[in-house]
Amino acid sequence: MNVNGCHYRTIWLKEPGTIQIINQQVLPFKFEILDLHTLEDICKAIKDMNVRGAGLIGAAAAYGMYLAALKAGENSFFDDMLRAMEALKKTRPTASNLMYSVQRMFKALSCAESPAHNRERAGKEAQAIADEDAEHCRRIGEHGLEIIKKISEKKGGKTVNILTHCNAGWLAFVDYGSALSPVYAAFDRGIDLHIWVDETRPRNQGAALTAWELSQHGVNYDLISDNVGGHLMQQGLVDMVITGADRVTRQGDAANKIGTYLKALAAKENNIPFYVALPSSTFDFTMSCGIKEIPIEERDSDEVRFVTGKTSCGKIETVLICPETATARNWGFDVTPARFITALITERGFCGASEQEIRALHEK
Amino acid sequence: MNVNGCHYRTIWLKEPGTIQIINQQVLPFKFEILDLHTLEDICKAIKDMNVRGAGLIGAAAAYGMYLAALKAGENSFFDDMLRAMEALKKTRPTASNLMYSVQRMFKALSCAESPAHNRERAGKEAQAIADEDAEHCRRIGEHGLEIIKKISEKKGGKTVNILTHCNAGWLAFVDYGSALSPVYAAFDRGIDLHIWVDETRPRNQGAALTAWELSQHGVNYDLISDNVGGHLMQQGLVDMVITGADRVTRQGDAANKIGTYLKALAAKENNIPFYVALPSSTFDFTMSCGIKEIPIEERDSDEVRFVTGKTSCGKIETVLICPETATARNWGFDVTPARFITALITERGFCGASEQEIRALHEK
Repeated sequence: MNVNGCHYRTIWLKEPGTIQIINQQVLPFKFEILDLHTLEDICKAIKDMNVRGAGLIGAAAAYGMYLAALKAGENSFFDDMLRAMEALKKTRPTASNLMYSVQRMFKALSCAESPAHNRERAGKEAQAIADEDAEHCRRIGEHGLEIIKKISEKKGGKTVNILTHCNAGWLAFVDYGSALSPVYAAFDRGIDLHIWVDETRPRNQGAALTAWELSQHGVNYDLISDNVGGHLMQQGLVDMVITGADRVTRQGDAANKIGTYLKALAAKENNIPFYVALPSSTFDFTMSCGIKEIPIEERDSDEVRFVTGKTSCGKIETVLICPETATARNWGFDVTPARFITALITERGFCGASEQEIRALHEK
Repeated sequence: MNVNGCHYRTIWLKEPGTIQIINQQVLPFKFEILDLHTLEDICKAIKDMNVRGAGLIGAAAAYGMYLAALKAGENSFFDDMLRAMEALKKTRPTASNLMYSVQRMFKALSCAESPAHNRERAGKEAQAIADEDAEHCRRIGEHGLEIIKKISEKKGGKTVNILTHCNAGWLAFVDYGSALSPVYAAFDRGIDLHIWVDETRPRNQGAALTAWELSQHGVNYDLISDNVGGHLMQQGLVDMVITGADRVTRQGDAANKIGTYLKALAAKENNIPFYVALPSSTFDFTMSCGIKEIPIEERDSDEVRFVTGKTSCGKIETVLICPETATARNWGFDVTPARFITALITERGFCGASEQEIRALHEK
């Protein structure tokens, strides 16, 4: 999507042996592009969260395998590639897209061919993984666009107010995003839109990333604290809610950033449609009941106790917001049961959040 | 309640002509007591939010009238007191306890008596207002204690988990608090408790004040971001929710800090009792439907864009958490409809959130 009027992806091949990324660690205060030349560079960028988000981590890992292939020894090529795979898997052990990517990269190699040929295969496969991620997100946008278009028509062209939680924008993928892809598609078609951006404590991905993305692309938005959504819906100031998902079970329960469930409750209570946008790869068909089966990561409590931002002198500082001795708990995700979800929007189209409809969509 | 093992109120008469307050602007990082000698000192303390919270503002205004009486001219006593009343009313124009307090103070004066006698009357009335606030809160605690005791018994003495939003503790009143008064009463009776403290963005009164209060009194708690409560309730980790209120209509709709409504929705969905604790003075019998009638203040958007805390060097800093150009909206309160409230806990006892039950409680 656009940054200062130019089109960017979050990750791309600059020239053979050089991958470039947008450094998300310094957003929204600085737009910085980093050059990555080695597997180690990629591992560090994933670990340090210079890149984050399911789709983007997957693409970064694929490019990591490509960079590893360039450096792998003539006589130890496959051993070196196995080591690269293990190194990448360790960077974010719970990222399922990462596992998928490195395994797909390894399978694309051929024992019957020379290292030189395999390097070429690795380059092509990494590019294919990145392109597929972008293409799936683009299609999510086209399907979601239909929903926004209908609301806009129903309102006689008046501003469509959309609430989103966390960052499921293009920064979390290679391009377009999941939840925000329909927003960009609608904006680019000239539909009058306004986005309510939940700041998304404790890591503030809404305030830092979603707000930045939307402003760079020119989409009208307002930042709100996570507490505000219920009031807005009660007052008729939200026409639809759209979020991403980290995992969706076969019966349609969706795990997403902590706080999503509270917005789903408010949407249901106030008869506002609640959509979850996701690439099909986010479905986990091994699970049925999300509340019972999806493991919820508990993260470092300092994410709650401290907030990072920019001082008036332009310095990035982390400040304590509670008593020194305060203890805190920090669950990263919650589960929105299927009955609160109006529809799931995927690259294959949209469907109701039920086992039957999800299966039907995948058997098309 | 206790600070470093000693009992404190939030405001008290140190000696004739000297009022002392806990400076809430520097909490939780510093415990500081300020001396106030004049009406102007009190007005500034209210305006600068060194004192805040409905009950405490009322008591501070009463002491302000007392300090004004001490300085009022022998020949211009009543004119000076009228001017004092106007000056106090301007400090926080929407604080209803403040209006009540200054009017009651003025009414306590007698035209038939000398300034010296009226000064004595002012001193006694201010003290009575502060004592009444503390006593009402103490009684709220006793009534709320019954509810907590029953949950504790039902759980066979296992830890009772209570979620609260914002600060409706003793720092918001003269002593005890509203929502936290039952918590202190239960803690002091040896009931095993654990409090989930919502940080309460954007002003973080939970992280800064509720966490500080509870830790000073020795109550077990964990700070959580405002997004977490729904997940906790879904997982059975909350036994009851208790909040304060800024205004409750005659049919029992409660306006309270923004985000309260989202917790009420989650409590209803998960069959968890949701209580609102308030002194009777918080009822507004002129209003019926809270959503339609209670005006919701919209505050400075910089409260959302910036966060204040302590740096690693011990300096208090305010940091920007979003793009420089980001716009934000900042509603201060939301309305929880009566049907989500299990009971209202007042100094008169508790009752259901309905016009009939509220009237019955007041006619006792």
